[in-house]
Amino acid sequence: MTEKVTLLLVNAHVLTMDEQLNQYRPGAVAITGENITAAGAENEIRQKYTADETIDCSGKIVMPGLVNAHTHIPMTLLRGLADDLRLDVWLMGYMMPVEREFVSPDFVRLGSLIACAEMIRSGVTSFADMYYFEEDVAKATAEAGMRGVLGQTVLKFPSPDAKSWEDSLAMARDFIQRWHGHPLVVPSVSPHAPYTCTGEILRATAQLAAEFDVPLHTHISETAFEVENMRNENGMPVVPYVKKQGLLEAKVLAAHCVHIDEGEMRTLLHAGAGIAHNPSSNLKLASGIAPVNKMLETGLNVGIGTDGPASNNDLDMFEEVRLAAFLAKTASNDPTALPAPQALAMATRIGAQALHIGHLTGSLEPGKRADLILINLDALHSSPKFERDPNSAYAQIVYASKSTDVTDVMVNGKWLMRNQKLLTLNQEDLLQQAASYAKRIDGFLMTREQSVLSKLIALGGSIEEESFEVQVKVKISNPDEVKKAIENFGFEVLYQRHYRQFDHYFTFDDPSQGRLRYREDDFIDSKGKVTDVRARLTLIGINRENEFAEDVLLSRSRYLAPASQTLRFYREYFKPTEEKMIEKDRLRWLVKHEGAEFYINLDTIERPDIGHFIEIKSRTWSSRDARKKAKLAAELLKALGVSEAEHQTRDYVEMLR
Amino acid sequence: MTEKVTLLLVNAHVLTMDEQLNQYRPGAVAITGENITAAGAENEIRQKYTADETIDCSGKIVMPGLVNAHTHIPMTLLRGLADDLRLDVWLMGYMMPVEREFVSPDFVRLGSLIACAEMIRSGVTSFADMYYFEEDVAKATAEAGMRGVLGQTVLKFPSPDAKSWEDSLAMARDFIQRWHGHPLVVPSVSPHAPYTCTGEILRATAQLAAEFDVPLHTHISETAFEVENMRNENGMPVVPYVKKQGLLEAKVLAAHCVHIDEGEMRTLLHAGAGIAHNPSSNLKLASGIAPVNKMLETGLNVGIGTDGPASNNDLDMFEEVRLAAFLAKTASNDPTALPAPQALAMATRIGAQALHIGHLTGSLEPGKRADLILINLDALHSSPKFERDPNSAYAQIVYASKSTDVTDVMVNGKWLMRNQKLLTLNQEDLLQQAASYAKRIDGFLMTREQSVLSKLIALGGSIEEESFEVQVKVKISNPDEVKKAIENFGFEVLYQRHYRQFDHYFTFDDPSQGRLRYREDDFIDSKGKVTDVRARLTLIGINRENEFAEDVLLSRSRYLAPASQTLRFYREYFKPTEEKMIEKDRLRWLVKHEGAEFYINLDTIERPDIGHFIEIKSRTWSSRDARKKAKLAAELLKALGVSEAEHQTRDYVEMLR
Repeated sequence: MTEKVTLLLVNAHVLTMDEQLNQYRPGAVAITGENITAAGAENEIRQKYTADETIDCSGKIVMPGLVNAHTHIPMTLLRGLADDLRLDVWLMGYMMPVEREFVSPDFVRLGSLIACAEMIRSGVTSFADMYYFEEDVAKATAEAGMRGVLGQTVLKFPSPDAKSWEDSLAMARDFIQRWHGHPLVVPSVSPHAPYTCTGEILRATAQLAAEFDVPLHTHISETAFEVENMRNENGMPVVPYVKKQGLLEAKVLAAHCVHIDEGEMRTLLHAGAGIAHNPSSNLKLASGIAPVNKMLETGLNVGIGTDGPASNNDLDMFEEVRLAAFLAKTASNDPTALPAPQALAMATRIGAQALHIGHLTGSLEPGKRADLILINLDALHSSPKFERDPNSAYAQIVYASKSTDVTDVMVNGKWLMRNQKLLTLNQEDLLQQAASYAKRIDGFLMTREQSVLSKLIALGGSIEEESFEVQVKVKISNPDEVKKAIENFGFEVLYQRHYRQFDHYFTFDDPSQGRLRYREDDFIDSKGKVTDVRARLTLIGINRENEFAEDVLLSRSRYLAPASQTLRFYREYFKPTEEKMIEKDRLRWLVKHEGAEFYINLDTIERPDIGHFIEIKSRTWSSRDARKKAKLAAELLKALGVSEAEHQTRDYVEMLR
Repeated sequence: MTEKVTLLLVNAHVLTMDEQLNQYRPGAVAITGENITAAGAENEIRQKYTADETIDCSGKIVMPGLVNAHTHIPMTLLRGLADDLRLDVWLMGYMMPVEREFVSPDFVRLGSLIACAEMIRSGVTSFADMYYFEEDVAKATAEAGMRGVLGQTVLKFPSPDAKSWEDSLAMARDFIQRWHGHPLVVPSVSPHAPYTCTGEILRATAQLAAEFDVPLHTHISETAFEVENMRNENGMPVVPYVKKQGLLEAKVLAAHCVHIDEGEMRTLLHAGAGIAHNPSSNLKLASGIAPVNKMLETGLNVGIGTDGPASNNDLDMFEEVRLAAFLAKTASNDPTALPAPQALAMATRIGAQALHIGHLTGSLEPGKRADLILINLDALHSSPKFERDPNSAYAQIVYASKSTDVTDVMVNGKWLMRNQKLLTLNQEDLLQQAASYAKRIDGFLMTREQSVLSKLIALGGSIEEESFEVQVKVKISNPDEVKKAIENFGFEVLYQRHYRQFDHYFTFDDPSQGRLRYREDDFIDSKGKVTDVRARLTLIGINRENEFAEDVLLSRSRYLAPASQTLRFYREYFKPTEEKMIEKDRLRWLVKHEGAEFYINLDTIERPDIGHFIEIKSRTWSSRDARKKAKLAAELLKALGVSEAEHQTRDYVEMLR
């Protein structure tokens, strides 16, 4: 008696990707509804089963669909927006401003559908995602018919979908409650990373994941910088820190793990955590090469992911698997490391285990869901084929096949692609919608990038300084005498300070853009010790508003912003044509004189060495007030005994060369 | 008045890849016969030129064809034969034995045509090749319509196409003379590598190349091992060595250069040499990451190559360009390193310069040949498209496009592919022929791999030892007394030697395969110093032929081979089930006794510590002779005063455990 099944795939080269790497040639797979009934040698399967439908897979590989272990799929809509940039410039300068402006449920839905189309085309059947509005990712995934472990992002900053982390945590809870038990979607929660979350967020998300027994998806130790900061701030590397916060109480999927040591690997192993290795992304962002061999030796389930398509720039798992094998060889100086069968197992069975869905998918074994793909192995670049080495099919797929060789894709027993035709998605329609988004995003960025000012504003936090300023500056040769004169003058001194100032001036091809100054102030106490450091960014208009008698100036308006990023960040973000540096020692008094407030700066310009100067400045709000203060400032100079000296109308930076 | 041209490509996004990276959108290219007449903005081109034929390239990139800077194209027929092996096992264990057996003009022609089909499909228009029977590569290349710099290999070993290097040099001369000035093929000469060539070969090939002003294509510093050997043998790294041999007098194309220093880069620059960077191959074989940033900064023309398809395992330049950009970023810890436009320039204009054909191809500029490709940028994985960043098209091609996005290819003004249909080659027919080769190669290797013996023979150089051996062995506790007894016996001593011997025994699942012994002999002089080291491989049959009275043995036949490879090589090549190690100190005498020659071994087995033994052995040629010698050997033992001890019938390795 034969058993009746729904579908038989016959005459195939079947790679089961089970623990023993059983393969059958010719092989067959029997499918009943959503599930795999059997996979084996064709004659045995045909003896045991008859089917409503039998499909001849001659010349094809039949194997489990690929598992993309880490991505941010809605970012297909930002693919190619900005490349070859450092992570902070890319993220803070481009991705986050655009995300703040554009990310919405509609954006997420469209980006997800496009990503699903691309993943289906390239043989992916399951993936782990982390983004905003994750429930909309879930709807799109279910619509496309794919399997996903989908994590609602929680982080300490306001995000496109939540004003606070409590809001996003509540969204995550709602999402998990509504989707728990869905046949395709495993809802989960994604505290973004230890450096973007507080300890409280890590604890709360782990508790939520544990409460519903769903996976928790996060980024761990992606860059050496992150690990260094963690060591400085908490005296330990990243894994012990997240363990201390209770994060490892949940079923964790840890993306990247580029910079973890063997102790951390064992900790992750004991916690049952899965790892997502992202070779392309780690190379493109110069994060480093993850210790994949060591992690596998430790016994960790290491899957392979593409990371988001905005950084990678695609969702091509064939490329990632090949690269994983390549990098493991080079990193260990051993071409026999991470051979093709093991690399392909990482992208299937082991990847599914890393996502905590190994019981559902990842290999062609009875009882698992029918998530499988057909690959054409008759392509030019896959020819010829040798049979001597039982691993040659794996090697062919890993080292020579392309994602475009995938012809058919089935998830949960349902065909999503047949003969390279998508069955659940309308590609043309999706691409048209994407083009319209791209146009709007392009417009937004082009407007922003028309001026240094709009780029500064796009970073957030900048303030326009509306006040005008009266200034007089004189070069002096006797700073000690002038200092004494100031101290003995009898002003009411509101405060006195001592700084060391480092000014970097960016200038641009178009002088009307103004000058951008990055200033670092080191505050120095009476003992000469640096007590505080502050960095500020100032965009200074190039035109002077007016010039008064005796070279007293009414200066131009300017924009101020706290410089929360590094100098290097601003250099790469604003791309100045030229850069100049001034280092000075400044004694500053705020005094009252004739009812008005004046700043008196006694400056020694040390780099370049152009001597000593006294500046007298005062904020002003009207022309009349400005004229009055200009006169007072000039008189003050005389009273301090430096009247004969030549007045400087130029800023320090203009005196260079 | 407009000028008449043959063909106008219009409505394209034209990337000229010229020095200024001019791009036009919409752009057009005017072609007259074999040459590019102009490339520019569409309206300007249309104003200046009319054409017999105008092709609308809407939604397509038009750019110069890719230049594959280093490959061995006929090896498509060996693709996937053996993977995940170390270079020596792969080369000496698989490639060279198969090449010795199969490489012929027919093999080379078929492999080349398949490679050309694959390269055309993936947008390559020019390539630099190095193989045997290179004139047959040239014929295939011309038939396919591609442009090639094709180098006849010369090396110091016999090769599939020549018994001696003088023969291959003569072949190279003939080839260059016949093909010099061909519109598509630039003939050249390829001394394989400094470590496979003598200084004389390097000089002779450089002179030949200089005589005809053709390029010389070679491998330089691919592995750290090569550089280490060069330093040990010649006291300098590879580039100074080849310079000393006069190699740099020629127009050199140096493949790999993974391990060269800045001084060597400057030497190559001054010599006008081009470099071929092979990222996939270097990763897969764990050779390392070439210092591409440094080479480019030095001013070298660094092209990008796939290396041979047997090691890579494909000829996909899109993958190589992406990987070149990725690796440069990771190697320099800087994601802004080797940005997309520069990576694509390496694969086009700079690559052509590296091949010394920059005057002919590599960019869309007036006067160069019409070597160009059309790429579909409307694919799912290339969407959406942003226009803000002028580099976004380069980034899209480098980071997201696939070779399968290439739709049309033109070389020398002639279409080789239109709408993904090959026009000069019959793919089906080629693949059928390849399948037949694969079957024969599979058969050859499967036969060979049936036994350890045939695998040993396949390595070459092994000798069957036809002689039989008589042996008696006794464990002793008084080696010093026995030594004295031997010295005082009054033999005619033909020689006496002292060794330290390291034996590694490989055993296999199937005991009938015998035991394979890798023995290293360290010869020790009277002062206790090691004077010479020799390594030998011996395959020892498992069955004893006969056993005589008093445990004197007639041993089994065996195969000997010099062990020119490392122990590690043999371990990976033969894949033993088990491995045992014995380290011993051996005093050996060859003596004459009663007219017969006997070896007397006084052995101390130190690892594992199993004590002292005396062995008496003699070669024998007949049963009668064996019986006689067995008797003599037993008598000899008694005469040396060790007769009471128990005779050992087992080899040392059999005594373990």
